[in-house]
Amino acid sequence: MISVLVSSRAASLTPYTPGEQPRNREYIKLNTNENPYPPAPAAAKVIADYKADDLRLYPDPQFRHLREAIAGSYNLKPEEVFAGNGSDEILSFAFYAFFDSSRGPVLFPEHTYSFYPVYCGFYELPFQILPLRSDFSIDLSSYLGIENHTGMVFPNPNAPTGIGIDPKDIRSFLDRYRSDRICIIDEAYIDFGGRSCAGLIREYDNLLLIHTLSKSRSLAGLRVGYALGNPDLIQTLFTVKDSFNSYPINRLSHDIAVTAMKDRDYSSKTQQKIIATRDSTVKTLTGLGWEVLPSMANFIFARLPGISGEQIYLSLKERGILVRHFNHPGISDFIRITIGTESDMEIFIHTLKDLRLSRR
Amino acid sequence: MISVLVSSRAASLTPYTPGEQPRNREYIKLNTNENPYPPAPAAAKVIADYKADDLRLYPDPQFRHLREAIAGSYNLKPEEVFAGNGSDEILSFAFYAFFDSSRGPVLFPEHTYSFYPVYCGFYELPFQILPLRSDFSIDLSSYLGIENHTGMVFPNPNAPTGIGIDPKDIRSFLDRYRSDRICIIDEAYIDFGGRSCAGLIREYDNLLLIHTLSKSRSLAGLRVGYALGNPDLIQTLFTVKDSFNSYPINRLSHDIAVTAMKDRDYSSKTQQKIIATRDSTVKTLTGLGWEVLPSMANFIFARLPGISGEQIYLSLKERGILVRHFNHPGISDFIRITIGTESDMEIFIHTLKDLRLSRR
Repeated sequence: MISVLVSSRAASLTPYTPGEQPRNREYIKLNTNENPYPPAPAAAKVIADYKADDLRLYPDPQFRHLREAIAGSYNLKPEEVFAGNGSDEILSFAFYAFFDSSRGPVLFPEHTYSFYPVYCGFYELPFQILPLRSDFSIDLSSYLGIENHTGMVFPNPNAPTGIGIDPKDIRSFLDRYRSDRICIIDEAYIDFGGRSCAGLIREYDNLLLIHTLSKSRSLAGLRVGYALGNPDLIQTLFTVKDSFNSYPINRLSHDIAVTAMKDRDYSSKTQQKIIATRDSTVKTLTGLGWEVLPSMANFIFARLPGISGEQIYLSLKERGILVRHFNHPGISDFIRITIGTESDMEIFIHTLKDLRLSRR
Repeated sequence: MISVLVSSRAASLTPYTPGEQPRNREYIKLNTNENPYPPAPAAAKVIADYKADDLRLYPDPQFRHLREAIAGSYNLKPEEVFAGNGSDEILSFAFYAFFDSSRGPVLFPEHTYSFYPVYCGFYELPFQILPLRSDFSIDLSSYLGIENHTGMVFPNPNAPTGIGIDPKDIRSFLDRYRSDRICIIDEAYIDFGGRSCAGLIREYDNLLLIHTLSKSRSLAGLRVGYALGNPDLIQTLFTVKDSFNSYPINRLSHDIAVTAMKDRDYSSKTQQKIIATRDSTVKTLTGLGWEVLPSMANFIFARLPGISGEQIYLSLKERGILVRHFNHPGISDFIRITIGTESDMEIFIHTLKDLRLSRR
């Protein structure tokens, strides 16, 4: 009886599969790109000092203080900032707001954040996947040759490859890209050595940037993300939000996020530590014969020639280390390794050296 | 240039308008059905004791502990419980999951929660509005005469009228209603004297109940709601959620909600206080010549014959009291008054007596 109750669009959904969140065993978790360092001490203080009585009242549906804090950290105006319940929610709203199936498919890269095709499924949007170059980098020029499409989205740096694009290359791309199509850049991992395109949003009305506090602010458990763009784009996101859920950010997350955005010294220090650990991990892996794609993120994407990615993933899991493996054609040899603490990565390398792997 | 970037469905949205959340003046807020009492002291303790370091990790995308706590309080199984970022988000997912435009319009009452037509707009679902009886109660039998429709939704008690329906009447309705159409009952206000249909979900596979912690648990600022229904309905809601945003409930809200669900003694006491204040307020207003609809909610819907609702709303606002006025044909004479503390309501009555209102 149930299946007749389900709408045809819900029945045809293929949901996103997040990385494992183990509950019954302690793992060294290098699988979901969480930050190994705690959030800013000032954020902890917000919690400790929080007046629980205030929770009886609805939050501000405009997230004003948070948008002011975010705007302040980019020298932008609050009208150029949207916020949401994690960057995933904002991406979802943006797909609804700016992609229109009557204008053609959504364009995104071949190997990228696997939620993009899921959003397309959710909103019944066609999509077209553009191949990466042979070095796994995104070929922006290939997007210019496609007349019929409704807009594009890609992460910078890309996930799961970690490969970044310089804003000057993005600028020269946008100069040639259609101004009547949206370009959404998902900058979730930009704070680990990449350079944000925030400085370009006033020049390009069709540029929307999506950020999260999950990675660079160590707040994956808080669920706060934000978007930067022209005030009209931001206003459209508010209209979509207000047609879905008026209050997506709760009072506590809002206040903690304000503090985390202001504490740039702390987050910058943890980001630098992660970059240093990443670079030393890459060096060690390379010395062990691994091929590691050049990463500007808090993870690396790597393969050991001749050994299957799945074998490495399963062997590490058995030894108490979780990494992420995507069983997708073209990248199934790779594993994605989140950069943990120095000590996490020493254990990771030590364990890796100790694995008995069989060549194909 | 912007308008060409907006999708045609986003361009045609009419968003929901939440009640005012004033920022620049202290009002007695009787306009958004918030609970005037603080959340359970145990919830405050969860915050005070919270280990901020845990926020670096993603939350549980299955909200297991919360679903266990909710299930426990209804003698249900966790598989019969869904949770979300406020009941509004769950309603949105449910509209997506169970309403299908190819099967006909969504049915809901004439005067009801004004987010329902907004969801229909968001998902491009046709809807059909069913008139209330002349006493403003929902006429369930009128839903049986409509062959062509995709399902129905209504709040019990209804908002903004406050009028409730007894579960035995709902049971006899469901016995006659099509089993291949969903019946969503929004029980947001059920804990103020109404009786939940939670006991019916095992009998009726097509019954989905939506709840919130905003009102009866004094946690509007936390954004947690839940749904009760057959495990297959719940699984469908998970599929929809996982195609939109994997982690809609953050770690802190999750843990606070677990505690609030367990602390039934406290919430039951505040609910009883609100019921007592409501009943005395109704008595006083009736004595002053007001017509008050019989309320089973934490608000009342009332009119003073001969005086426009807008005039009363504006006069009260000027005096520092916010109530809600809906400028809709058929109910524009009414104001909706949230039940505050005893003291709030004394000030409200005192202020009301003092207003100089002009008859039409």
